[in-house]
Amino acid sequence: MNTLMNRRLVLASRPEGMSIASDFRLETVATPMPTDGEVLLRSVYLSLDPYMRGRMSDKASYADPVAINDVMVGATVCQVVESKHADFVKGEWVLAYTGWQDYGISNGEGLIKIDANVMQPSYALGILGMTGFTAYMGLLDIGQPKAGETLVVAAATGAVGATVGQIGKIKGCRVVGIAGGAEKCAYAKQTLGFDECIDHLADDFAEQLAQACDNGIDVYFENVGGKVFDAVLPLLNTGARIPVCGLISQYNATALPDGPDRMSMLVATLLIKRIKMQGFIIFDDYAPRYNEFAQQMATWLASGEIKYREDKVTGLENAPEAFLTLFNGKNFGKLVVQVNQPL
Amino acid sequence: MNTLMNRRLVLASRPEGMSIASDFRLETVATPMPTDGEVLLRSVYLSLDPYMRGRMSDKASYADPVAINDVMVGATVCQVVESKHADFVKGEWVLAYTGWQDYGISNGEGLIKIDANVMQPSYALGILGMTGFTAYMGLLDIGQPKAGETLVVAAATGAVGATVGQIGKIKGCRVVGIAGGAEKCAYAKQTLGFDECIDHLADDFAEQLAQACDNGIDVYFENVGGKVFDAVLPLLNTGARIPVCGLISQYNATALPDGPDRMSMLVATLLIKRIKMQGFIIFDDYAPRYNEFAQQMATWLASGEIKYREDKVTGLENAPEAFLTLFNGKNFGKLVVQVNQPL
Repeated sequence: MNTLMNRRLVLASRPEGMSIASDFRLETVATPMPTDGEVLLRSVYLSLDPYMRGRMSDKASYADPVAINDVMVGATVCQVVESKHADFVKGEWVLAYTGWQDYGISNGEGLIKIDANVMQPSYALGILGMTGFTAYMGLLDIGQPKAGETLVVAAATGAVGATVGQIGKIKGCRVVGIAGGAEKCAYAKQTLGFDECIDHLADDFAEQLAQACDNGIDVYFENVGGKVFDAVLPLLNTGARIPVCGLISQYNATALPDGPDRMSMLVATLLIKRIKMQGFIIFDDYAPRYNEFAQQMATWLASGEIKYREDKVTGLENAPEAFLTLFNGKNFGKLVVQVNQPL
Repeated sequence: MNTLMNRRLVLASRPEGMSIASDFRLETVATPMPTDGEVLLRSVYLSLDPYMRGRMSDKASYADPVAINDVMVGATVCQVVESKHADFVKGEWVLAYTGWQDYGISNGEGLIKIDANVMQPSYALGILGMTGFTAYMGLLDIGQPKAGETLVVAAATGAVGATVGQIGKIKGCRVVGIAGGAEKCAYAKQTLGFDECIDHLADDFAEQLAQACDNGIDVYFENVGGKVFDAVLPLLNTGARIPVCGLISQYNATALPDGPDRMSMLVATLLIKRIKMQGFIIFDDYAPRYNEFAQQMATWLASGEIKYREDKVTGLENAPEAFLTLFNGKNFGKLVVQVNQPL
């Protein structure tokens, strides 16, 4: 086993604006071996998520940045390939946080076992993991959707957005998605069951959105920002709720946009319309409610009420290019990298 | 009685920027007489409040504007001077909404009786009315202050701010006020019991605020906006709450400030720090909880835990000038106009 080699992607440089493939460097090093009380994990699936862009930057954020030359962080679904830990045996599936590499060592702390008989292991990175949990708590706890209300979801076919919209339908909302291009919009309506989906690439996007929301917007699930938020803002109803989950259009911005300064206008809108706008970080805010979520979501998946699409890329070496598709509109579904074959 | 004359202030013009005395016009007309089922009310106290600036404008807001040549709206404490309504007798005190004039007719709808043996009637316009209720619900329901947290209150000696800060002290917060000038700051600390009060007229205001909030800010009660909010924003802690009650520094603005456009920066801050920012309009959002508030506040007033200061101006004709003091920093305490002597 001592010849086992570990491919890993380290952060080579901090991106200026959009991250590029050369901000990562592929290295191959000897795999460390587990000592007593440890397990050696082999990554089968790596999750790629927008929040990772924040970790590449040394701007202040909710988590420390990845250091230059350190392995990029990320959630993974792994199998135990060697165990010196009493609680784990070879072949077991676990949700781990080994990052962008083939192998990782763990003392067991934070590992969550996955029953591969009950679900596809990669789902633990998406619909039954952080992605689904984010959609569920953000929409239901902060958004408080009520039957008959209008819910607008940007990045409607993205991993979070697709789930938000489907939960909104279950709760009886009129759901209006926003997505880039005809294919995604058709998917949102035909497969996910959204009432409408507006193409943000259209010249008259704001007008189309206003038309689709003729009773205004009661809940806007914010995961995009930028011109989508600009179009949403004048349509918000009195008493609207805005869970702020992400701002993917802004993550590669290097400077604030030109003026006028609309910050006070936004606050005035919150006041005049009695709007609640609230950011959240899923496991920091809601960890104790994970089981409630997981049971409900498993039921919805089993009944077909929630549909789930993965965007699966093969090969760790392709992770940097795949990561960029989260920001250029090419990603379609929950993005996971198949790093290795299962045992 | 037919010779009774009614002085009234009507909206003469919509202000451009800061409202001025000539935006109002004093008229004297015959007082209408009550018919069956009506009462004639004589105003003793008129409340002057920042929200009235919004009603003078025809910009979209949460309430319709006052029409040109109509009487300015406003809450009043009145006495019944003639009753043709079974539920009211001459001399009774009521909280009404007769506006900026001597007399008003009512069919009884919306009138709230005030027991002048229990409280000073003018308190119904302030600490035991909209002002106190706003402070109470905004701070406790949206702000959710916890003992040991830092609460920052702008307009610290204003009608709402003074109450917010005192409730914060009762709840065990470190309370940092912001006010204009040494006299107001001394009052906030010595009389209201704030831990600190920072003078926003000081050149190094932002630095002083940062120093006073060395553990950051957990709750910011927003009733000012502008440069105060600019100084607060970088000090907000993870999980902070911002009840948005008013934006008095912005009400006379005629255009958005120059860029850069910080709107996306604000939303990113809400996300990264998991902050809740929520506007509210007191009676729209919280009317069913008025009794809970009124009982608690009466107890606090009686025990001396909450202190209350009125800024009383005599004479309806002085209302326009007095109204301006809400915006130029000269008002100190809850602003009421004594329109007439009690019966």
